[in-house]
Amino acid sequence: MLHLVSRCSARLFWASPRWRRTYTQGASLRLKWLGCPHHRCSPLACREYSSASGSPEVMLTPERYPVQRLPFSTVSEEDVAAFECIIPGRVVTDPEQLEACNVDWLRSVRGSSKVLLRPQTSEEVSQILRHCCKRNLAVNPQGGNTGMVGGSVPVFDEVILSTALMNKVISFHDVSGILVCQAGCVLEELSRYVQERDFIMPLDLGAKGSCHMGGNVATNAGGLRFLRYGSLRGTVLGLEVVLADGTILNCLTSLRKDNTGYDLKQLFIGSEGTLGVITAVSILCPPRPKAVNVAFLESPFYVLVETSGSSAGHDAEKLTSVLEQVLNSGLVSDGTMATDQKKVQMLWALRERITEALSRDGYVFKYDISLPVERLYDLVVDLRTRLGPRAKHVVGYGHLGDGNLHLNVTAEAFSQELLGALEPYVYAWTAEQRGSVSAEHGLGFKKKNVLHYSKPPEAVRLMQQLKGLLDPKGILNPYKTLPVQA
Amino acid sequence: MLHLVSRCSARLFWASPRWRRTYTQGASLRLKWLGCPHHRCSPLACREYSSASGSPEVMLTPERYPVQRLPFSTVSEEDVAAFECIIPGRVVTDPEQLEACNVDWLRSVRGSSKVLLRPQTSEEVSQILRHCCKRNLAVNPQGGNTGMVGGSVPVFDEVILSTALMNKVISFHDVSGILVCQAGCVLEELSRYVQERDFIMPLDLGAKGSCHMGGNVATNAGGLRFLRYGSLRGTVLGLEVVLADGTILNCLTSLRKDNTGYDLKQLFIGSEGTLGVITAVSILCPPRPKAVNVAFLESPFYVLVETSGSSAGHDAEKLTSVLEQVLNSGLVSDGTMATDQKKVQMLWALRERITEALSRDGYVFKYDISLPVERLYDLVVDLRTRLGPRAKHVVGYGHLGDGNLHLNVTAEAFSQELLGALEPYVYAWTAEQRGSVSAEHGLGFKKKNVLHYSKPPEAVRLMQQLKGLLDPKGILNPYKTLPVQA
Repeated sequence: MLHLVSRCSARLFWASPRWRRTYTQGASLRLKWLGCPHHRCSPLACREYSSASGSPEVMLTPERYPVQRLPFSTVSEEDVAAFECIIPGRVVTDPEQLEACNVDWLRSVRGSSKVLLRPQTSEEVSQILRHCCKRNLAVNPQGGNTGMVGGSVPVFDEVILSTALMNKVISFHDVSGILVCQAGCVLEELSRYVQERDFIMPLDLGAKGSCHMGGNVATNAGGLRFLRYGSLRGTVLGLEVVLADGTILNCLTSLRKDNTGYDLKQLFIGSEGTLGVITAVSILCPPRPKAVNVAFLESPFYVLVETSGSSAGHDAEKLTSVLEQVLNSGLVSDGTMATDQKKVQMLWALRERITEALSRDGYVFKYDISLPVERLYDLVVDLRTRLGPRAKHVVGYGHLGDGNLHLNVTAEAFSQELLGALEPYVYAWTAEQRGSVSAEHGLGFKKKNVLHYSKPPEAVRLMQQLKGLLDPKGILNPYKTLPVQA
Repeated sequence: MLHLVSRCSARLFWASPRWRRTYTQGASLRLKWLGCPHHRCSPLACREYSSASGSPEVMLTPERYPVQRLPFSTVSEEDVAAFECIIPGRVVTDPEQLEACNVDWLRSVRGSSKVLLRPQTSEEVSQILRHCCKRNLAVNPQGGNTGMVGGSVPVFDEVILSTALMNKVISFHDVSGILVCQAGCVLEELSRYVQERDFIMPLDLGAKGSCHMGGNVATNAGGLRFLRYGSLRGTVLGLEVVLADGTILNCLTSLRKDNTGYDLKQLFIGSEGTLGVITAVSILCPPRPKAVNVAFLESPFYVLVETSGSSAGHDAEKLTSVLEQVLNSGLVSDGTMATDQKKVQMLWALRERITEALSRDGYVFKYDISLPVERLYDLVVDLRTRLGPRAKHVVGYGHLGDGNLHLNVTAEAFSQELLGALEPYVYAWTAEQRGSVSAEHGLGFKKKNVLHYSKPPEAVRLMQQLKGLLDPKGILNPYKTLPVQA
């Protein structure tokens, strides 16, 4: 039984020490904070979701944003012929087929690329980049195109380099749980693959049905298992990367420990395709838990908690004891628990489909910030007052255990005035708390100019030097991640 | 009761899938493989340990190894005066005091530095490095000087920059468990500090009584909690680093998630002081487990297993069930269990003091390699045959769950002939298994030339380019980590 309550305060956050003790014990818990129920956009209201086809055409990025094309070459007929030599039959120039790769899935930005390349091997990627580098052609590496910040589509006419056909599992070690796969493997398919072998992927996200492993690594995706299994910086054991000049950098080891020199793969994790194109990934998968419990609790926030462990009896005992405590103390007013797969999935769908639900509400201004956990909801409350009726809804949800707030402001349509009320206010507010202006989504195209709110000038300068070292012509995913240099 | 058995085979490794299932469940287990009991150097034989004082003088590094001094300046009286201005009263030039900082704790390498600097703040480190950079003076950053590969002492007359007086806790957040401290804090002291607040450090090593947090991060220390809490690449949340030119790079955030630009701190984790001097660390501490069990098992190897969880009852039940299984199946012949602190410590001492025990056996040739777990002991067996009576003992122990073998070969004294029989054989053997020639100890001075056994030329070149970018004059910890350029 699912009950909704309508009180709203920040009380849950004061109570977080209690939760901390719980979720990190024996049977670990995942906490997902679903937002404040009495506010206007409840995910419960959006049970049906249809694709955005039929919605109005997306504006070209340079029409909405002040961005100048850099002096890259333009793809010529000779270039297309050269690509056709490298990957015969896998060079796409048909405008209709290109449309889906030029527009991001949020339908918020749109490039005008004239060519999409679909290599199958690292060697092909290497030859493509060697050609592009020589010809000074800009390249937009693209995985499942599920990014949230406009990083996965071209801004102008960059060549789109898709990993879609690089979708083979290379190896799986059924003792260590180490999976090696090509970059274009879809997360959900990998999940299925390793589950059949009694393991699970260390990450899980709402976009799992489309996102590619390479794209996940390139954006350093966080997602729903972050609290339990940690960051990709720990679980990714090796990468194969093709550099801007076509060099294949093989750091695809499958070792838990390797302290031989600098850990180069870390450069590419979270660099959003601006330093190299990830072509293969080695990743450590945890054993599949034998017991999973999900609790959905209310008062004054919705909280989704998942436990996973090796003994159903022990886990149930621990969870029951915690629930008794929080119910008796009045901290939680109501809730429901699930152990069977179907109900577990139903509860998770409430969380995973919030993004879809919001996109039905009109234009969505999206922020993804890290804050000290005790301040996590303050900005939501603050913004409601600040924006008043200018915003349709101000919604905050996220990852309680990670201090990660997904802040969404919806309006009938994009409005420069509303944007002006939100920015730089949200970023300055976050910087004041020493938070991060991008917790897990990255900077991509839309957030690249706010980097300085979370990083000092010395760090930004060093990032720019690294970009200059690895991609001197700047052909890899230009206009992304780093601010324009003065 | 502790029983020792004397059979010896590689059987435990064939059985590792069984163990994997165990140590990753609810109450997680740490597995430490203690080596084969019937071989000659049992740690049990070494209950008393005295310091190595009184042992023969250590040869100067350039006398044993073929290494040429690079054309750095020599410390002048004016330099000493300048340092005295920056850190009055904390410039050490007394040869006796310098001795301890010139020789590594294994007493295997020895530098001839004439000056030791003991700054207290990052600002002081910055001023020192600015001066050294301008004057082209080489610098050896030094933490607790507990490194295993000669990385923590000067090779020639580098200025020693000690973090010993940078030993303050900056902050601790008792909800999130995030600790921020200066680089010179001793691991054991931090351990005590956070334990009083109901947390533990995510890493633990035999050298904990001396090693500094900054040094741990600079070497990307693995240690005894790696399997349970993962690598420093995941638990270190932020760093403050002073670059070669004196620039203070403040990436000292305390956020679980931060995807704003490239993760610069990763460059410095494991770079052994060659890219910058770590001056402060932000690290995530896990909650202190309520229940700890240690099992010490026999047949044919000693295995030390630690479980930590939130419920003593549940953990005991799980562990008992596993032990029944392995005893009934004949996989394990005997063993003992401990829950009380004293016995737990006694069992751990058996493991932690192996290094000390070995050092009493004469000169020790040390290797620290990662291998596929099913091949972990093969090299030990192979070497016993290969070396015959030339070696006093060939000892293998390590971290079963991490695939990390500590291979030690002892002899009465250093011998070029024995070295020739060991190298490059051990490295080539490891490379053939696609292993790592340095799992957790780093490359330092002694292993820098074997980097290519685990990394391809493209990776080595990129590492050298990174060094050139961050430290163009090469003043930071020269002669370490990267091979000499042709």
